[in-house]
Amino acid sequence: MKENIGPKNALYPLPVTLVGSLVDGKPNYITIAHVGIVDLAHLSVSMAKVHYSNAGIRENGEFSVNLPPTGLVKETDYCGLVSGRKADKGSLFEAFYGVLENAPMIRECPVNMACRLEQTLDMPKHDVFIGEIVETFCDTEVLAGGNVDFSRVHPILFAMYDRSYFELGGRFADAWSCGKELMGK
Amino acid sequence: MKENIGPKNALYPLPVTLVGSLVDGKPNYITIAHVGIVDLAHLSVSMAKVHYSNAGIRENGEFSVNLPPTGLVKETDYCGLVSGRKADKGSLFEAFYGVLENAPMIRECPVNMACRLEQTLDMPKHDVFIGEIVETFCDTEVLAGGNVDFSRVHPILFAMYDRSYFELGGRFADAWSCGKELMGK
Repeated sequence: MKENIGPKNALYPLPVTLVGSLVDGKPNYITIAHVGIVDLAHLSVSMAKVHYSNAGIRENGEFSVNLPPTGLVKETDYCGLVSGRKADKGSLFEAFYGVLENAPMIRECPVNMACRLEQTLDMPKHDVFIGEIVETFCDTEVLAGGNVDFSRVHPILFAMYDRSYFELGGRFADAWSCGKELMGK
Repeated sequence: MKENIGPKNALYPLPVTLVGSLVDGKPNYITIAHVGIVDLAHLSVSMAKVHYSNAGIRENGEFSVNLPPTGLVKETDYCGLVSGRKADKGSLFEAFYGVLENAPMIRECPVNMACRLEQTLDMPKHDVFIGEIVETFCDTEVLAGGNVDFSRVHPILFAMYDRSYFELGGRFADAWSCGKELMGK
């Protein structure tokens, strides 16, 4: 039976990311799971306007998106609990940089993307930063045939209403393939 | 060791959705995993401009986002393989409607959102439809305490480069909580 639960956003689970930026010249990281793929060259991160990082991203026009593994769940959750105004979150991780000098990436995260801010959606309480992905770095251990094997990344997946962090389960089917047997029916 | 793999979008896994629309007055469904949360009231679905559904969404200003369970992986994959121009995908599922008469939802999917098109990002090859969530429906079996328990939804999670469908794993930590022990250190 269907139940109408009102206009609730139920587009979960989404991958938890740590968004890196320079604020007043220092690396800062914030936990963001309200993210999305815009197209293969662009992604979105939705950040409440109250956050400390937003001014740095606006000012520098650059940020990073890092995928923390389940083993870093405490550090990841902490970055969502404490503001960069009050704590130096930059010292939690080892930063590294690619060509974008204002997009600190996190060495301890197995997947890192350096982004150039392309546009910002001005929502009532959120800046939705749309970034062009300029460079992607991975730990060699998570690569298989030149691509990221997400079963090796151990990403943290998030659902909001019951405040859950989930692990990724097993690969169980092939995309653009398993539905072929229904063709022509 | 870090490897630079070029500007690859690695914001995976993302939940696979079936986007419902009316095209020429008939329900059509397409498989879209390049999605995102914009804020709690809005979501995004990125749909290549070549798709049959896009004109219907533009014309009617309404669409649905449905979360198929792993048990429907073949039907879900099929909806991404075959165009509505060539096949009647509307007959695959039982449609139902809320207040939005142009947003057919899929009864067989445990979570359904009816959306009003609020704006469209015009990317080079994609329409990124940003929808206001007007109504959300769920199977009573996936609710726990009035919220969606995603472990009961059995969503399909997608990663592109190796064409993977993954299951959701177990809930392993509490958000806005497990990081508290690092506070004050």
